[in-house]
Amino acid sequence: MDKKLKKIVNDKTSGSSEILFELHNHLKNEKKLITLFPEIIELTKKQFKSFQSIQKYLNDMSLFLKKRKGLEFFFEKYDQIFRKSLIGLKANAKQILNNYSSFITISNSNTLFEVLKELNQSKKKIKIFVLESRPKFEGRILAKKLSALSNIKIHLITEAMMADSVKKVDAALIGADSILATGDVINKMGSLQLALLCKEMNKPFYVVADKNKFSKSRTFSQNEMPPEEIWRHKSKNLIVQNFYFEKVDKNLITEIITD
Amino acid sequence: MDKKLKKIVNDKTSGSSEILFELHNHLKNEKKLITLFPEIIELTKKQFKSFQSIQKYLNDMSLFLKKRKGLEFFFEKYDQIFRKSLIGLKANAKQILNNYSSFITISNSNTLFEVLKELNQSKKKIKIFVLESRPKFEGRILAKKLSALSNIKIHLITEAMMADSVKKVDAALIGADSILATGDVINKMGSLQLALLCKEMNKPFYVVADKNKFSKSRTFSQNEMPPEEIWRHKSKNLIVQNFYFEKVDKNLITEIITD
Repeated sequence: MDKKLKKIVNDKTSGSSEILFELHNHLKNEKKLITLFPEIIELTKKQFKSFQSIQKYLNDMSLFLKKRKGLEFFFEKYDQIFRKSLIGLKANAKQILNNYSSFITISNSNTLFEVLKELNQSKKKIKIFVLESRPKFEGRILAKKLSALSNIKIHLITEAMMADSVKKVDAALIGADSILATGDVINKMGSLQLALLCKEMNKPFYVVADKNKFSKSRTFSQNEMPPEEIWRHKSKNLIVQNFYFEKVDKNLITEIITD
Repeated sequence: MDKKLKKIVNDKTSGSSEILFELHNHLKNEKKLITLFPEIIELTKKQFKSFQSIQKYLNDMSLFLKKRKGLEFFFEKYDQIFRKSLIGLKANAKQILNNYSSFITISNSNTLFEVLKELNQSKKKIKIFVLESRPKFEGRILAKKLSALSNIKIHLITEAMMADSVKKVDAALIGADSILATGDVINKMGSLQLALLCKEMNKPFYVVADKNKFSKSRTFSQNEMPPEEIWRHKSKNLIVQNFYFEKVDKNLITEIITD
Protein backbone atom coordinates (compact mmCIF):
# COMPACT_ATOMS: atom_id res chain seq x y z
CA MET A 1 0.00 0.00 0.00
CA ASP A 2 1.45 3.38 -0.98
CA LYS A 3 2.04 6.27 1.42
CA LYS A 4 -0.92 8.36 0.26
CA LEU A 5 -3.32 5.45 0.62
CA LYS A 6 -1.97 4.65 4.10
CA LYS A 7 -2.59 8.27 5.09
CA ILE A 8 -6.20 8.09 3.85
CA VAL A 9 -6.92 4.80 5.61
CA ASN A 10 -5.49 6.05 8.90
CA ASP A 11 -7.20 9.45 8.83
CA LYS A 12 -8.88 10.02 12.21
CA THR A 13 -9.75 13.67 11.89
CA SER A 14 -11.51 14.19 8.54
CA GLY A 15 -15.21 13.69 7.97
CA SER A 16 -16.45 10.76 5.90
CA SER A 17 -17.12 12.79 2.74
CA GLU A 18 -13.58 14.11 2.66
CA ILE A 19 -12.05 10.68 3.28
CA LEU A 20 -14.23 9.11 0.61
CA PHE A 21 -13.39 11.84 -1.87
CA GLU A 22 -9.66 11.37 -1.25
CA LEU A 23 -9.97 7.60 -1.54
CA HIS A 24 -12.02 7.82 -4.72
CA ASN A 25 -9.59 10.18 -6.45
CA HIS A 26 -6.59 8.16 -5.38
CA LEU A 27 -7.93 4.79 -6.58
CA LYS A 28 -9.24 6.35 -9.77
CA ASN A 29 -5.77 7.57 -10.64
CA GLU A 30 -3.90 4.50 -9.38
CA LYS A 31 -5.73 1.80 -11.29
CA LYS A 32 -2.49 -0.18 -11.48
CA LEU A 33 -3.27 -0.98 -7.81
CA ILE A 34 -6.24 -3.04 -9.05
CA THR A 35 -4.89 -6.40 -7.84
CA LEU A 36 -4.74 -4.90 -4.35
CA PHE A 37 -8.32 -3.54 -4.52
CA PRO A 38 -9.96 -6.46 -2.61
CA GLU A 39 -7.45 -6.06 0.22
CA ILE A 40 -7.83 -2.27 0.24
CA ILE A 41 -11.62 -2.63 0.33
CA GLU A 42 -11.51 -4.99 3.30
CA LEU A 43 -9.11 -2.84 5.32
CA THR A 44 -10.90 0.43 4.57
CA LYS A 45 -14.33 -1.01 5.46
CA LYS A 46 -12.91 -2.12 8.81
CA GLN A 47 -11.34 1.26 9.52
CA PHE A 48 -14.47 3.31 8.80
CA LYS A 49 -17.27 1.21 10.27
CA SER A 50 -19.35 4.25 11.23
CA PHE A 51 -19.05 5.95 7.84
CA GLN A 52 -22.04 4.84 5.81
CA SER A 53 -21.04 6.52 2.53
CA ILE A 54 -17.64 4.78 2.56
CA GLN A 55 -19.24 1.40 3.27
CA LYS A 56 -21.66 1.86 0.36
CA TYR A 57 -18.95 2.98 -2.03
CA LEU A 58 -16.76 -0.02 -1.21
CA ASN A 59 -19.66 -2.49 -1.47
CA ASP A 60 -20.50 -1.08 -4.85
CA MET A 61 -16.85 -1.31 -5.90
CA SER A 62 -16.79 -4.99 -4.86
CA LEU A 63 -19.72 -5.68 -7.19
CA PHE A 64 -17.93 -4.01 -10.10
CA LEU A 65 -14.74 -5.94 -9.31
CA LYS A 66 -16.61 -9.27 -9.40
CA LYS A 67 -17.71 -8.47 -12.93
CA ARG A 68 -13.99 -8.01 -13.70
CA LYS A 69 -14.81 -5.05 -15.90
CA GLY A 70 -16.43 -1.67 -15.83
CA LEU A 71 -14.25 -0.12 -13.14
CA GLU A 72 -13.92 2.85 -15.46
CA PHE A 73 -17.71 3.14 -15.43
CA PHE A 74 -17.75 2.76 -11.61
CA PHE A 75 -15.40 5.71 -11.08
CA GLU A 76 -17.30 7.85 -13.57
CA LYS A 77 -20.61 6.99 -11.88
CA TYR A 78 -19.26 8.13 -8.51
CA ASP A 79 -17.71 11.28 -9.93
CA GLN A 80 -21.22 12.19 -11.04
CA ILE A 81 -22.84 11.14 -7.76
CA PHE A 82 -20.44 13.30 -5.74
CA ARG A 83 -20.88 16.31 -8.00
CA LYS A 84 -24.66 16.10 -8.21
CA SER A 85 -25.29 15.40 -4.54
CA LEU A 86 -23.18 18.35 -3.41
CA ILE A 87 -24.93 20.71 -5.82
CA GLY A 88 -28.36 19.49 -4.66
CA LEU A 89 -27.46 19.63 -1.00
CA LYS A 90 -26.00 23.15 -1.21
CA ALA A 91 -29.10 24.44 -3.00
CA ASN A 92 -31.39 22.97 -0.35
CA ALA A 93 -29.20 24.21 2.50
CA LYS A 94 -29.17 27.74 1.08
CA GLN A 95 -32.96 27.80 1.02
CA ILE A 96 -33.48 26.35 4.49
CA LEU A 97 -30.69 28.16 6.33
CA ASN A 98 -30.89 31.51 4.65
CA ASN A 99 -32.51 33.27 7.61
CA TYR A 100 -29.81 32.29 10.10
CA SER A 101 -26.64 34.28 10.63
CA SER A 102 -24.86 32.39 13.39
CA PHE A 103 -24.26 28.69 13.95
CA ILE A 104 -22.54 26.30 16.32
CA THR A 105 -20.91 23.13 15.02
CA ILE A 106 -18.72 20.24 16.12
CA SER A 107 -15.89 18.32 14.45
CA ASN A 108 -14.66 18.62 10.88
CA SER A 109 -17.10 17.86 8.07
CA ASN A 110 -16.38 18.69 4.45
CA THR A 111 -20.11 18.74 3.60
CA LEU A 112 -20.59 21.28 6.37
CA PHE A 113 -17.66 23.34 5.09
CA GLU A 114 -19.15 23.39 1.58
CA VAL A 115 -22.54 24.46 2.95
CA LEU A 116 -21.01 27.22 5.07
CA LYS A 117 -18.98 28.43 2.08
CA GLU A 118 -22.21 28.56 0.05
CA LEU A 119 -24.03 30.50 2.79
CA ASN A 120 -21.06 32.78 3.19
CA GLN A 121 -21.18 33.70 -0.51
CA SER A 122 -24.86 34.56 -0.40
CA LYS A 123 -24.97 36.40 2.92
CA LYS A 124 -23.46 39.56 4.28
CA LYS A 125 -21.67 38.06 7.25
CA ILE A 126 -21.94 34.82 9.21
CA LYS A 127 -20.58 33.79 12.59
CA ILE A 128 -19.60 30.21 13.47
CA PHE A 129 -18.79 28.72 16.87
CA VAL A 130 -16.61 25.67 16.24
CA LEU A 131 -16.17 23.16 19.08
CA GLU A 132 -12.58 21.93 19.35
CA SER A 133 -13.75 18.29 19.32
CA ARG A 134 -11.72 16.38 21.88
CA PRO A 135 -9.74 14.22 21.82
CA LYS A 136 -8.31 14.85 18.35
CA PHE A 137 -9.21 18.53 17.90
CA GLU A 138 -10.77 18.21 14.43
CA GLY A 139 -12.56 21.47 15.16
CA ARG A 140 -9.23 23.24 14.64
CA ILE A 141 -9.01 21.86 11.09
CA LEU A 142 -12.47 23.16 10.21
CA ALA A 143 -11.77 26.51 11.92
CA LYS A 144 -8.58 26.93 9.86
CA LYS A 145 -10.38 26.08 6.60
CA LEU A 146 -13.20 28.51 7.43
CA SER A 147 -10.78 31.28 8.33
CA ALA A 148 -9.68 31.43 4.68
CA LEU A 149 -13.16 32.70 3.74
CA SER A 150 -14.04 36.37 3.89
CA ASN A 151 -17.03 37.89 5.70
CA ILE A 152 -16.97 35.20 8.33
CA LYS A 153 -16.17 35.27 12.03
CA ILE A 154 -15.07 32.08 13.74
CA HIS A 155 -15.05 31.37 17.48
CA LEU A 156 -13.05 28.29 18.43
CA ILE A 157 -14.27 26.96 21.79
CA THR A 158 -13.89 23.90 24.02
CA GLU A 159 -16.73 21.43 24.54
CA ALA A 160 -16.90 22.70 28.14
CA MET A 161 -18.17 26.00 26.72
CA MET A 162 -20.99 24.42 24.75
CA ALA A 163 -24.00 25.57 26.80
CA ASP A 164 -22.65 29.10 27.06
CA SER A 165 -22.23 29.25 23.27
CA VAL A 166 -25.53 27.63 22.20
CA LYS A 167 -27.19 30.64 23.89
CA LYS A 168 -25.39 32.97 21.48
CA VAL A 169 -26.28 31.38 18.11
CA ASP A 170 -29.31 31.11 15.83
CA ALA A 171 -28.95 27.38 15.15
CA ALA A 172 -26.75 24.29 15.40
CA LEU A 173 -25.53 22.73 12.16
CA ILE A 174 -23.61 19.47 11.99
CA GLY A 175 -22.52 16.89 9.44
CA ALA A 176 -23.20 13.17 9.82
CA ASP A 177 -21.23 9.96 9.57
CA SER A 178 -24.31 7.86 9.00
CA ILE A 179 -28.09 8.15 9.14
CA LEU A 180 -29.83 5.04 10.42
CA ALA A 181 -33.02 3.62 8.92
CA THR A 182 -34.73 4.83 12.12
CA GLY A 183 -33.88 8.44 11.22
CA ASP A 184 -31.39 8.76 14.07
CA VAL A 185 -28.06 10.34 13.16
CA ILE A 186 -24.59 9.02 13.99
CA ASN A 187 -21.99 11.72 14.40
CA LYS A 188 -18.93 12.71 16.42
CA MET A 189 -19.08 12.56 20.24
CA GLY A 190 -20.56 15.77 21.63
CA SER A 191 -23.31 15.89 18.99
CA LEU A 192 -25.94 14.43 21.32
CA GLN A 193 -25.37 17.01 24.04
CA LEU A 194 -25.37 19.76 21.43
CA ALA A 195 -28.79 18.52 20.29
CA LEU A 196 -30.07 18.27 23.88
CA LEU A 197 -28.87 21.78 24.66
CA CYS A 198 -30.57 23.09 21.52
CA LYS A 199 -33.81 21.44 22.63
CA GLU A 200 -33.44 23.00 26.08
CA MET A 201 -32.70 26.45 24.65
CA ASN A 202 -35.20 26.29 21.77
CA LYS A 203 -32.62 26.51 19.01
CA PRO A 204 -33.08 24.59 15.75
CA PHE A 205 -30.72 21.67 15.19
CA TYR A 206 -29.84 20.88 11.54
CA VAL A 207 -27.91 18.01 10.02
CA VAL A 208 -26.40 18.20 6.52
CA ALA A 209 -25.86 14.85 4.79
CA ASP A 210 -26.08 13.65 1.20
CA LYS A 211 -28.16 10.56 0.39
CA ASN A 212 -25.05 8.34 0.41
CA LYS A 213 -25.01 8.68 4.20
CA PHE A 214 -28.38 6.95 4.62
CA SER A 215 -28.00 3.42 5.95
CA LYS A 216 -30.30 0.39 6.01
CA SER A 217 -29.10 -0.45 9.50
CA ARG A 218 -31.29 0.33 12.52
CA THR A 219 -28.60 -0.08 15.16
CA PHE A 220 -25.28 1.42 16.07
CA SER A 221 -22.54 0.06 18.33
CA GLN A 222 -19.78 2.13 19.88
CA ASN A 223 -16.12 1.19 19.42
CA GLU A 224 -13.72 1.96 22.23
CA MET A 225 -10.72 3.92 20.91
CA PRO A 226 -7.18 4.21 22.37
CA PRO A 227 -7.32 5.91 25.82
CA GLU A 228 -3.86 7.44 25.23
CA GLU A 229 -5.47 9.84 22.78
CA ILE A 230 -7.12 11.48 25.79
CA TRP A 231 -4.60 10.98 28.58
CA ARG A 232 -1.44 8.92 28.94
CA HIS A 233 -1.87 7.73 32.49
CA LYS A 234 -2.08 4.29 33.98
CA SER A 235 -3.65 3.52 37.31
CA LYS A 236 -5.25 0.40 38.72
CA ASN A 237 -8.75 1.74 39.30
CA LEU A 238 -8.77 4.50 36.70
CA ILE A 239 -10.12 3.97 33.19
CA VAL A 240 -9.75 6.60 30.49
CA GLN A 241 -12.73 6.20 28.16
CA ASN A 242 -12.58 7.19 24.50
CA PHE A 243 -15.53 6.87 22.13
CA TYR A 244 -15.58 8.73 18.79
CA PHE A 245 -19.23 8.53 17.77
CA GLU A 246 -22.68 8.69 19.29
CA LYS A 247 -26.31 8.57 18.23
CA VAL A 248 -28.55 11.63 18.07
CA ASP A 249 -32.21 10.73 18.35
CA LYS A 250 -34.31 11.89 15.39
CA ASN A 251 -36.71 13.67 17.76
CA LEU A 252 -33.91 16.11 18.58
CA ILE A 253 -33.31 17.00 14.91
CA THR A 254 -35.17 19.90 13.30
CA GLU A 255 -34.35 18.72 9.79
CA ILE A 256 -31.87 16.59 7.89
CA ILE A 257 -30.86 18.68 4.89
CA THR A 258 -29.99 16.40 1.99
CA ASP A 259 -29.71 16.41 -1.81
CA MET B 1 6.81 37.36 47.70
CA ASP B 2 8.24 33.89 48.32
CA LYS B 3 8.09 31.01 45.86
CA LYS B 4 5.38 29.06 47.69
CA LEU B 5 3.11 32.10 47.91
CA LYS B 6 3.65 32.86 44.21
CA LYS B 7 2.60 29.31 43.40
CA ILE B 8 -0.59 29.66 45.47
CA VAL B 9 -1.54 32.99 43.94
CA ASN B 10 -1.00 31.69 40.40
CA ASP B 11 -2.82 28.39 40.89
CA LYS B 12 -5.28 27.94 38.01
CA THR B 13 -6.25 24.32 38.55
CA SER B 14 -7.20 23.89 42.23
CA GLY B 15 -10.62 24.59 43.64
CA SER B 16 -11.17 27.56 45.94
CA SER B 17 -11.18 25.53 49.18
CA GLU B 18 -7.80 24.03 48.41
CA ILE B 19 -6.26 27.37 47.43
CA LEU B 20 -7.68 29.04 50.53
CA PHE B 21 -6.42 26.24 52.74
CA GLU B 22 -2.91 26.51 51.25
CA LEU B 23 -2.93 30.29 51.59
CA HIS B 24 -4.17 30.15 55.17
CA ASN B 25 -1.54 27.64 56.25
CA HIS B 26 1.23 29.51 54.52
CA LEU B 27 0.39 32.94 55.97
CA LYS B 28 -0.20 31.43 59.41
CA ASN B 29 3.31 30.00 59.41
CA GLU B 30 4.98 32.98 57.73
CA LYS B 31 3.83 35.75 60.01
CA LYS B 32 7.12 37.55 59.41
CA LEU B 33 5.53 38.45 56.05
CA ILE B 34 3.05 40.63 57.96
CA THR B 35 4.25 43.94 56.45
CA LEU B 36 3.48 42.46 53.03
CA PHE B 37 -0.01 41.31 54.04
CA PRO B 38 -1.92 44.32 52.58
CA GLU B 39 -0.16 43.84 49.24
CA ILE B 40 -0.75 40.06 49.32
CA ILE B 41 -4.44 40.60 50.13
CA GLU B 42 -4.90 43.00 47.24
CA LEU B 43 -3.17 40.75 44.71
CA THR B 44 -4.90 37.57 45.87
CA LYS B 45 -8.36 39.20 45.81
CA LYS B 46 -7.72 40.25 42.24
CA GLN B 47 -6.55 36.80 41.18
CA PHE B 48 -9.53 34.92 42.62
CA LYS B 49 -12.48 37.18 41.88
CA SER B 50 -14.88 34.26 41.42
CA PHE B 51 -13.89 32.51 44.64
CA GLN B 52 -16.25 33.75 47.33
CA SER B 53 -14.58 31.98 50.28
CA ILE B 54 -11.21 33.54 49.43
CA GLN B 55 -12.75 37.00 49.11
CA LYS B 56 -14.43 36.65 52.51
CA TYR B 57 -11.29 35.38 54.19
CA LEU B 58 -9.19 38.26 52.88
CA ASN B 59 -11.81 40.88 53.79
CA ASP B 60 -11.89 39.49 57.29
CA MET B 61 -8.08 39.52 57.43
CA SER B 62 -8.09 43.20 56.39
CA LEU B 63 -10.32 44.01 59.37
CA PHE B 64 -7.97 42.22 61.75
CA LEU B 65 -4.97 43.99 60.20
CA LYS B 66 -6.59 47.40 60.73
CA LYS B 67 -6.81 46.64 64.43
CA ARG B 68 -3.07 45.95 64.24
CA LYS B 69 -3.48 43.04 66.61
CA GLY B 70 -5.24 39.76 66.97
CA LEU B 71 -3.86 38.09 63.85
CA GLU B 72 -3.16 35.08 66.04
CA PHE B 73 -6.85 35.02 66.89
CA PHE B 74 -7.80 35.43 63.22
CA PHE B 75 -5.81 32.38 62.14
CA GLU B 76 -7.19 30.30 65.02
CA LYS B 77 -10.73 31.35 64.15
CA TYR B 78 -10.30 30.18 60.57
CA ASP B 79 -8.63 26.94 61.60
CA GLN B 80 -11.81 26.20 63.51
CA ILE B 81 -14.14 27.37 60.71
CA PHE B 82 -12.40 25.12 58.17
CA ARG B 83 -12.44 22.11 60.50
CA LYS B 84 -16.04 22.52 61.59
CA SER B 85 -17.51 23.28 58.18
CA LEU B 86 -15.90 20.24 56.60
CA ILE B 87 -17.15 17.95 59.37
CA GLY B 88 -20.69 19.36 59.05
CA LEU B 89 -20.69 19.21 55.28
CA LYS B 90 -19.43 15.63 55.18
CA ALA B 91 -22.06 14.49 57.64
CA ASN B 92 -24.85 16.10 55.60
CA ALA B 93 -23.48 14.76 52.33
CA LYS B 94 -23.29 11.24 53.72
CA GLN B 95 -26.94 11.37 54.68
CA ILE B 96 -28.20 12.88 51.42
CA LEU B 97 -26.03 10.93 48.98
CA ASN B 98 -26.01 7.57 50.69
CA ASN B 99 -28.38 5.93 48.21
CA TYR B 100 -26.29 6.80 45.15
CA SER B 101 -23.46 4.62 43.89
CA SER B 102 -22.28 6.45 40.77
CA PHE B 103 -21.63 10.11 40.07
CA ILE B 104 -20.40 12.41 37.34
CA THR B 105 -18.34 15.49 38.22
CA ILE B 106 -16.32 18.28 36.61
CA SER B 107 -13.07 20.02 37.53
CA ASN B 108 -11.05 19.62 40.72
CA SER B 109 -12.70 20.49 44.02
CA ASN B 110 -11.19 19.60 47.36
CA THR B 111 -14.61 19.75 49.06
CA LEU B 112 -15.86 17.26 46.52
CA PHE B 113 -12.84 15.03 47.06
CA GLU B 114 -13.45 15.03 50.83
CA VAL B 115 -17.12 14.17 50.31
CA LEU B 116 -16.30 11.34 47.90
CA LYS B 117 -13.69 10.01 50.36
CA GLU B 118 -16.33 10.02 53.08
CA LEU B 119 -18.87 8.21 50.87
CA ASN B 120 -16.19 5.78 49.79
CA GLN B 121 -15.48 4.85 53.42
CA SER B 122 -19.12 4.18 54.20
CA LYS B 123 -20.11 2.39 51.01
CA LYS B 124 -19.15 -0.85 49.35
CA LYS B 125 -18.04 0.59 46.05
CA ILE B 126 -18.58 3.84 44.17
CA LYS B 127 -18.01 4.81 40.56
CA ILE B 128 -17.09 8.32 39.43
CA PHE B 129 -17.02 9.79 35.93
CA VAL B 130 -14.59 12.72 36.02
CA LEU B 131 -14.70 15.23 33.13
CA GLU B 132 -11.21 16.26 32.02
CA SER B 133 -12.13 19.96 32.31
CA ARG B 134 -10.67 21.76 29.31
CA PRO B 135 -8.62 23.82 28.88
CA LYS B 136 -6.46 23.09 31.92
CA PHE B 137 -7.41 19.45 32.61
CA GLU B 138 -8.09 19.84 36.35
CA GLY B 139 -10.17 16.68 36.10
CA ARG B 140 -6.92 14.73 35.81
CA ILE B 141 -5.79 16.08 39.18
CA LEU B 142 -9.01 14.96 40.87
CA ALA B 143 -8.91 11.59 39.08
CA LYS B 144 -5.36 10.98 40.31
CA LYS B 145 -6.29 11.90 43.89
CA LEU B 146 -9.35 9.64 43.78
CA SER B 147 -7.37 6.75 42.34
CA ALA B 148 -5.45 6.53 45.63
CA LEU B 149 -8.66 5.44 47.39
CA SER B 150 -9.73 1.83 47.48
CA ASN B 151 -13.15 0.48 46.43
CA ILE B 152 -13.59 3.16 43.85
CA LYS B 153 -13.69 3.07 40.05
CA ILE B 154 -12.85 6.21 38.11
CA HIS B 155 -13.68 6.96 34.48
CA LEU B 156 -11.79 9.93 33.06
CA ILE B 157 -13.71 11.35 30.09
CA THR B 158 -13.70 14.40 27.80
CA GLU B 159 -16.44 17.02 27.97
CA ALA B 160 -17.52 15.78 24.50
CA MET B 161 -18.61 12.54 26.21
CA MET B 162 -20.79 14.27 28.80
CA ALA B 163 -24.26 13.30 27.52
CA ASP B 164 -23.20 9.70 26.97
CA SER B 165 -21.92 9.50 30.55
CA VAL B 166 -24.76 11.29 32.35
CA LYS B 167 -26.94 8.39 31.13
CA LYS B 168 -24.75 5.95 33.05
CA VAL B 169 -24.73 7.57 36.53
CA ASP B 170 -27.10 7.99 39.46
CA ALA B 171 -26.39 11.68 40.00
CA ALA B 172 -24.14 14.65 39.22
CA LEU B 173 -22.11 16.12 42.07
CA ILE B 174 -20.04 19.27 41.75
CA GLY B 175 -18.24 21.77 43.97
CA ALA B 176 -18.78 25.52 43.74
CA ASP B 177 -16.64 28.61 43.49
CA SER B 178 -19.36 30.88 44.76
CA ILE B 179 -23.08 30.79 45.52
CA LEU B 180 -24.90 34.01 44.68
CA ALA B 181 -27.56 35.58 46.90
CA THR B 182 -30.05 34.50 44.19
CA GLY B 183 -29.21 30.85 44.89
CA ASP B 184 -27.48 30.40 41.54
CA VAL B 185 -24.14 28.64 41.63
CA ILE B 186 -20.88 29.78 40.00
CA ASN B 187 -18.60 26.94 38.99
CA LYS B 188 -16.17 25.79 36.31
CA MET B 189 -17.22 25.97 32.62
CA GLY B 190 -19.16 22.86 31.66
CA SER B 191 -21.20 22.88 34.88
CA LEU B 192 -24.22 24.49 33.22
CA GLN B 193 -24.47 21.91 30.46
CA LEU B 194 -23.98 19.14 33.01
CA ALA B 195 -26.97 20.55 34.92
CA LEU B 196 -29.07 20.90 31.75
CA LEU B 197 -28.27 17.33 30.71
CA CYS B 198 -29.26 16.10 34.18
CA LYS B 199 -32.56 17.93 33.87
CA GLU B 200 -33.11 16.38 30.44
CA MET B 201 -32.25 12.89 31.67
CA ASN B 202 -33.98 13.16 35.05
CA LYS B 203 -30.82 12.80 37.11
CA PRO B 204 -30.38 14.70 40.39
CA PHE B 205 -27.80 17.49 40.35
CA TYR B 206 -26.06 18.20 43.68
CA VAL B 207 -23.65 20.95 44.69
CA VAL B 208 -21.37 20.65 47.73
CA ALA B 209 -20.25 23.96 49.25
CA ASP B 210 -19.56 25.14 52.78
CA LYS B 211 -21.20 28.33 54.06
CA ASN B 212 -18.07 30.37 53.27
CA LYS B 213 -18.94 30.07 49.60
CA PHE B 214 -22.21 31.98 49.97
CA SER B 215 -21.97 35.49 48.57
CA LYS B 216 -24.06 38.64 49.06
CA SER B 217 -23.68 39.45 45.38
CA ARG B 218 -26.56 38.79 42.98
CA THR B 219 -24.55 39.10 39.77
CA PHE B 220 -21.62 37.42 38.09
CA SER B 221 -19.42 38.64 35.25
CA GLN B 222 -17.23 36.44 33.09
CA ASN B 223 -13.52 37.16 32.67
CA GLU B 224 -11.90 36.28 29.37
CA MET B 225 -8.79 34.15 29.94
CA PRO B 226 -5.71 33.67 27.69
CA PRO B 227 -6.77 32.00 24.38
CA GLU B 228 -3.35 30.29 24.15
CA GLU B 229 -4.46 27.95 26.93
CA ILE B 230 -6.87 26.43 24.40
CA TRP B 231 -5.05 26.80 21.09
CA ARG B 232 -1.96 28.71 19.98
CA HIS B 233 -3.16 29.93 16.63
CA LYS B 234 -3.53 33.41 15.21
CA SER B 235 -5.81 34.28 12.34
CA LYS B 236 -7.52 37.50 11.34
CA ASN B 237 -11.14 36.33 11.60
CA LEU B 238 -10.69 33.55 14.15
CA ILE B 239 -11.15 34.14 17.87
CA VAL B 240 -10.28 31.49 20.44
CA GLN B 241 -12.59 32.03 23.40
CA ASN B 242 -11.63 31.02 26.92
CA PHE B 243 -13.91 31.47 29.92
CA TYR B 244 -13.27 29.60 33.19
CA PHE B 245 -16.55 30.00 35.05
CA GLU B 246 -20.27 30.04 34.39
CA LYS B 247 -23.54 30.35 36.28
CA VAL B 248 -25.83 27.41 36.99
CA ASP B 249 -29.41 28.52 37.59
CA LYS B 250 -30.81 27.44 40.96
CA ASN B 251 -33.79 25.81 39.24
CA LEU B 252 -31.41 23.24 37.78
CA ILE B 253 -30.00 22.29 41.21
CA THR B 254 -31.58 19.48 43.22
CA GLU B 255 -29.89 20.58 46.45
CA ILE B 256 -26.91 22.56 47.69
CA ILE B 257 -25.33 20.40 50.37
CA THR B 258 -23.68 22.62 52.96
CA ASP B 259 -22.48 22.55 56.59
